[in-house]
Amino acid sequence: MKRVAVFTSGGDAPGMNACIRAVVRGGLHYGLEMFGIIRGYNGMIKGDIIPLNSQSVSNIVQRGGTILKSARSKEFMTPEGRKKGYDQLKAHGIDGLIAIGGNGTFTGAEIFFNEFQIPTVGAPGTIDNDLYGTDYTIGFDTAVNTALDAIDKIRDTADSHDRIFFIEVMGRDSGYIAMQSGISGGAESILIPEERQTIDDVVSVLKAGFDRKKSSSIVIVAEGDEEGHAAEVADKIKATIDVPVDIRVTNLGHIQRGGSPTAYDRILSSRLGLGALEGLLNGQKNVMAGIVNDELIYTPFHDTITKKKLINSDLLRMASILR
Amino acid sequence: MKRVAVFTSGGDAPGMNACIRAVVRGGLHYGLEMFGIIRGYNGMIKGDIIPLNSQSVSNIVQRGGTILKSARSKEFMTPEGRKKGYDQLKAHGIDGLIAIGGNGTFTGAEIFFNEFQIPTVGAPGTIDNDLYGTDYTIGFDTAVNTALDAIDKIRDTADSHDRIFFIEVMGRDSGYIAMQSGISGGAESILIPEERQTIDDVVSVLKAGFDRKKSSSIVIVAEGDEEGHAAEVADKIKATIDVPVDIRVTNLGHIQRGGSPTAYDRILSSRLGLGALEGLLNGQKNVMAGIVNDELIYTPFHDTITKKKLINSDLLRMASILR
Amino acid sequence: MKRVAVFTSGGDAPGMNACIRAVVRGGLHYGLEMFGIIRGYNGMIKGDIIPLNSQSVSNIVQRGGTILKSARSKEFMTPEGRKKGYDQLKAHGIDGLIAIGGNGTFTGAEIFFNEFQIPTVGAPGTIDNDLYGTDYTIGFDTAVNTALDAIDKIRDTADSHDRIFFIEVMGRDSGYIAMQSGISGGAESILIPEERQTIDDVVSVLKAGFDRKKSSSIVIVAEGDEEGHAAEVADKIKATIDVPVDIRVTNLGHIQRGGSPTAYDRILSSRLGLGALEGLLNGQKNVMAGIVNDELIYTPFHDTITKKKLINSDLLRMASILR
Amino acid sequence: MKRVAVFTSGGDAPGMNACIRAVVRGGLHYGLEMFGIIRGYNGMIKGDIIPLNSQSVSNIVQRGGTILKSARSKEFMTPEGRKKGYDQLKAHGIDGLIAIGGNGTFTGAEIFFNEFQIPTVGAPGTIDNDLYGTDYTIGFDTAVNTALDAIDKIRDTADSHDRIFFIEVMGRDSGYIAMQSGISGGAESILIPEERQTIDDVVSVLKAGFDRKKSSSIVIVAEGDEEGHAAEVADKIKATIDVPVDIRVTNLGHIQRGGSPTAYDRILSSRLGLGALEGLLNGQKNVMAGIVNDELIYTPFHDTITKKKLINSDLLRMASILR
Repeated sequence: MKRVAVFTSGGDAPGMNACIRAVVRGGLHYGLEMFGIIRGYNGMIKGDIIPLNSQSVSNIVQRGGTILKSARSKEFMTPEGRKKGYDQLKAHGIDGLIAIGGNGTFTGAEIFFNEFQIPTVGAPGTIDNDLYGTDYTIGFDTAVNTALDAIDKIRDTADSHDRIFFIEVMGRDSGYIAMQSGISGGAESILIPEERQTIDDVVSVLKAGFDRKKSSSIVIVAEGDEEGHAAEVADKIKATIDVPVDIRVTNLGHIQRGGSPTAYDRILSSRLGLGALEGLLNGQKNVMAGIVNDELIYTPFHDTITKKKLINSDLLRMASILR
Repeated sequence: MKRVAVFTSGGDAPGMNACIRAVVRGGLHYGLEMFGIIRGYNGMIKGDIIPLNSQSVSNIVQRGGTILKSARSKEFMTPEGRKKGYDQLKAHGIDGLIAIGGNGTFTGAEIFFNEFQIPTVGAPGTIDNDLYGTDYTIGFDTAVNTALDAIDKIRDTADSHDRIFFIEVMGRDSGYIAMQSGISGGAESILIPEERQTIDDVVSVLKAGFDRKKSSSIVIVAEGDEEGHAAEVADKIKATIDVPVDIRVTNLGHIQRGGSPTAYDRILSSRLGLGALEGLLNGQKNVMAGIVNDELIYTPFHDTITKKKLINSDLLRMASILR
Repeated sequence: MKRVAVFTSGGDAPGMNACIRAVVRGGLHYGLEMFGIIRGYNGMIKGDIIPLNSQSVSNIVQRGGTILKSARSKEFMTPEGRKKGYDQLKAHGIDGLIAIGGNGTFTGAEIFFNEFQIPTVGAPGTIDNDLYGTDYTIGFDTAVNTALDAIDKIRDTADSHDRIFFIEVMGRDSGYIAMQSGISGGAESILIPEERQTIDDVVSVLKAGFDRKKSSSIVIVAEGDEEGHAAEVADKIKATIDVPVDIRVTNLGHIQRGGSPTAYDRILSSRLGLGALEGLLNGQKNVMAGIVNDELIYTPFHDTITKKKLINSDLLRMASILR
Repeated sequence: MKRVAVFTSGGDAPGMNACIRAVVRGGLHYGLEMFGIIRGYNGMIKGDIIPLNSQSVSNIVQRGGTILKSARSKEFMTPEGRKKGYDQLKAHGIDGLIAIGGNGTFTGAEIFFNEFQIPTVGAPGTIDNDLYGTDYTIGFDTAVNTALDAIDKIRDTADSHDRIFFIEVMGRDSGYIAMQSGISGGAESILIPEERQTIDDVVSVLKAGFDRKKSSSIVIVAEGDEEGHAAEVADKIKATIDVPVDIRVTNLGHIQRGGSPTAYDRILSSRLGLGALEGLLNGQKNVMAGIVNDELIYTPFHDTITKKKLINSDLLRMASILR
């Protein structure tokens, strides 16, 4: 293997730049020529491929977003699109790929590998932490701390006004951000897709709070909860009980994707980037690098996208005791 | 004057606690007995009035929200409600009031003063910075920095994905938060109630950006803009031109009210709190303390709620040059 | 077991309050009466013991420091002091203890248990992460992020002026904070007690940087490095080579102990607090609760203070590749 | 005027990049060709001068440090050095200069202007806020908030351990950072060069605190205080009274220079940058742009470096009431 290209795809996540840096400096350390593909699969199809040296990734470890940009590519979902991408890689002499992204990215990577056999190793880059094969994904710790910082701010105003706040956090199929930000933010109730919690459950928790003269409360709702978005949940609550205090709804939105990565995310991203690169050199292909119990492991793309990562139910039990 | 009570009313703002601390320690310094009224006018009506000593306001200078809590009071809008409030104050021997709040607070304070002549001085506590009689209000600088922090995070993801973001910030009648966070956040366009900007104006700015190959843009929309909320503005834009990039909308919401106050807000709040207290001792009444050109001044409540504070149009001119 | 008391001892760490909250609410959940001892072993000797209810630990999950205060106690090192402490506990009917602290705390706890057999379970509270029996300690993640934030700021000025900065971080016997903040901060060199790195090693790294036209560099020095404090290391470097750029030294100091805990620390602290309490109820004694590979385990106090926790040498290898 | 060059000199300050951006975009707006000089006067002497377009200053408004780098230049203090600088400017066709920096920068600029008459306007860039002719300087608000954030963290640990902390902040000749961070941080005592405060004064404040059972205290010492550095002040205190609690000393150091600028600093920097540029176009020379009472004014370099800016003594009076 002589020339390796790295790209980011799907939603951006804080730490992607630290991961790119680790891939590039790792590759240079082992004598490879390193390249970056701009805007994920779209850039591959267009041949938007640039050489990267040590200086190219200098001073980016602390930056949010991705210097290689990201995009979703409809064309890459077609055989013709992928063929164009392959031709571009060949034209540039690329014989190995590092793909940083989530579910969609690895779905594409698996198909592409099966068609063209260019060795590819993935690194899990998504704030949602919903990938099987790694305890944590790049950007998750930062997103949780961003959500937590917002919850802390909202509690100031909730306490001052005796209000119940319904706060929606990201996580279309996964309650990880909701659970971790909710527990650390001292939320009364946390609604996540993985756990069936009814409106009546929330009502009984809020009622118990009123009985204890608790005048303000925070309910965290994961984007993908089966009871609906935060606004819907709040409406259902209001339709069920006569709440003696004001209710407010807020959706944290896109701030959860940005910001300078935390120490944890920078180290995780670096380990995963270097691990993906070293795996590629050691013959790994069609797999994602992950860290489980502090050990680097490789999991087939197929498993990362089809197997379901379980949420630690002990944390939910704890949340119900501590509120 | 022997017994002075302080209260917070209306929307809470970071720095209110620093202001309460300054009122209380200032009062004790001058030999007064100090009291706090819980939940604004509601607490006054109910006689929820507690003594405050130096220790009561210890370690609160850095806290968001208000330890005296805040509320809106319908009952205080009635003569009967205000009479009850007056009776409670008399029962507690209160002969002076410090009111921390915004428009609504001072409207109530003026009526109350005209009816019962209890000397009252206000301190401008609102993140909106929409009060005549002071250059800045308590909480404004913190709210702007909170909004700016969010904009910085969103720019990470906007840049990574080549997107236009429409970001809504607080300010029902005032574009101050929008203007200051927009200029400091490097926004392409800033829509505020004070300045008539049409959808066509925004379109032409965005088009000019596309022509310069600018792939991501940020548009700040004040809550109270005449073109509507951020989502409506975005829809109008989409209906007008064929935007070559993704559009996203986000509303920063209640995080703008909370958080530990900035240094600026803590100092401003302290000066206004002490200034209000010293004004009260020096015979001021029915006025709000403010700081204009670094000088402490007192403005009749009537003017603070009826006169319009002008936005610095030079800043808008600058924004159009720097984008 | 009916009455359990919790205390914090030794250097304070962000997350101690979240841990106290989990101990107290956990205890109340299981029907115990809960107490807090003020100022660690000193408060035990003086009988400074107060009842704690659910409200007592409300709104503290986000606060740095410890509401129970901490102190080092010389008197508790004497048999007479410990006897006094035991008598006070008996007088208050305390039949179980939760000790939150580090090496010194558990050394005292082990002796005390051996003398008086009051069941005691510890929770690892120290920013240094130097306790055997847990992957991470309470406060470590926050301290690393605080150090990292400072490093990021210093890099701004290092880059602007082409300087080498020697930054000292906490860790008397442990290089954990240095290693994690150094790797995430993109430091050129990291000096820690666990790894023998000579001045010549640092010189050769810096020289290689100069050769690559790297104009600014950051060297992290753990407080307890065998080459001395950051200022000494800088002096030795200056005596060895003729550095073509300015050298500056800074010691991050006590800011590393404070601040609102990160999400990670709040969750870890909650798990360890509840885990310690549930362990105590289940018959554990003379042990520290810890989390290893995401599992709650209990390790005898004796092992936590005598066994050495190894640093992950793979991270050091990575640091040398990525710089 | 056709070609204008901008440079930064002296200690870097957060907001310098926002100022550079405003100068460059302002210049382009008025049809000028814009250039940047790298490393201040050193770069001028070496002809390290590069063209800058709108893109060159994109995405820097939020960055600490200075993209043009800064340095102190001994050679520029000699007539030969300045002649070389002048020749380089002529060779590049530069007919106007914007100098961003502090005392030393403007001292050099004045001499240079008197020798060669190249129109030069300055913008006040220094965290110390010690320049006559402007209410605030670029970077001051950010530095104060950075110091305040550190003080807030240290108070957590001071409170937990009943300690007195002596915290040294930057300000060789000026107590502005000390005063503003001290007041907003709730410090018991603030020692600054502008105000003669003896050790006995500090002792009496601390004693009064002990009498009020205040167990922790914070004393802020400006770098340039006549009683010496924080460590010396602490030693003198210890030699004077028998303090019943632990004393700790910490020096905040270089973190005060870095970090992303606050909203206030970004707007101030933008106004000063554009104001300097527009002043230059309107015939201003040998002056510094400043903002006094929200109005843009120009002050001769000579006055900015020889006249003394007075500290607001009302703030000191307030500090003594509120502690």
